[in-house]
Amino acid sequence: MTAPISVREIGADEFALVWPLFRSIVAAGDTYSYPPDLSFEQARDWWTTPPSQCFVAERGRLVLGCYMLKPNQPGLGDHVANAGYMVSPAARGQGVASAMCEHSMAQARDAGFTAMQFNFVVSTNTAAVRLWQRHGFRIVGQVPGAFRHVKHGPTDVYVMHRHL
Amino acid sequence: MTAPISVREIGADEFALVWPLFRSIVAAGDTYSYPPDLSFEQARDWWTTPPSQCFVAERGRLVLGCYMLKPNQPGLGDHVANAGYMVSPAARGQGVASAMCEHSMAQARDAGFTAMQFNFVVSTNTAAVRLWQRHGFRIVGQVPGAFRHVKHGPTDVYVMHRHL
Repeated sequence: MTAPISVREIGADEFALVWPLFRSIVAAGDTYSYPPDLSFEQARDWWTTPPSQCFVAERGRLVLGCYMLKPNQPGLGDHVANAGYMVSPAARGQGVASAMCEHSMAQARDAGFTAMQFNFVVSTNTAAVRLWQRHGFRIVGQVPGAFRHVKHGPTDVYVMHRHL
Repeated sequence: MTAPISVREIGADEFALVWPLFRSIVAAGDTYSYPPDLSFEQARDWWTTPPSQCFVAERGRLVLGCYMLKPNQPGLGDHVANAGYMVSPAARGQGVASAMCEHSMAQARDAGFTAMQFNFVVSTNTAAVRLWQRHGFRIVGQVPGAFRHVKHGPTDVYVMHRHL
């Protein structure tokens, strides 16, 4: 029987756990706008320095994915959360992204956020777009050519949103 | 005869020049998501720390407005510029925002940006929306209730974009 997926918050001191996954996703250049050669220190700081919070999804001690949760704006826009998710290529199709999305929405609600917004969903990442739609997000914006996809070149980016 | 509007870049050492204007715009709570009680140091760091660049519009030594220019995303999204503009209430209707917008687009082109995106144009700020439209920007997204307007409450926010 397969152990369940558990999700927990980690601090900067444990960011090394998710770094191999993080690095491989960013290096692929097909879903995140981070520089493909992003350093460990920069990634760790972006994902773990408050108000950003970093979470890891694990099965036992096996890292399946990670996500980051933060306010999308400061001040008068800080009721809207923002999140970014990464799933290990070896763990695709196991519901890891769904588990993290549900976890992030619960965390966001608990923290008082009333909505969640993704600013940069690469339009060719159709599996992600459909997954977020199944979780209640809708496309509220489309920015032409905002992502330089490593394979497809200039690629549209969606803004997605849902109330919590 | 009225002296022309001139626009120049300033560093952290001159941010105090624009701080009275900056503070009054943010304190009004009707156009920017910054915390209304934002500190001088935080504002200065956000607007002058590279890759952010800060510019001041002046007539002689009179400060009319200021703007910030930066990449909207790191890495594979850093061909799209982002900018934010503030006009002194005493200098409204004098073409200050237009002068800064034109200046920012020229700066952005010179720096190699191929597009410009505004992420957070408050929908009730109709003068600004129309002005950006006249300067070639179009609304590519609308996020429901993303701004807590000090007078109107939850207010939609536009994402605006143009190629350069």
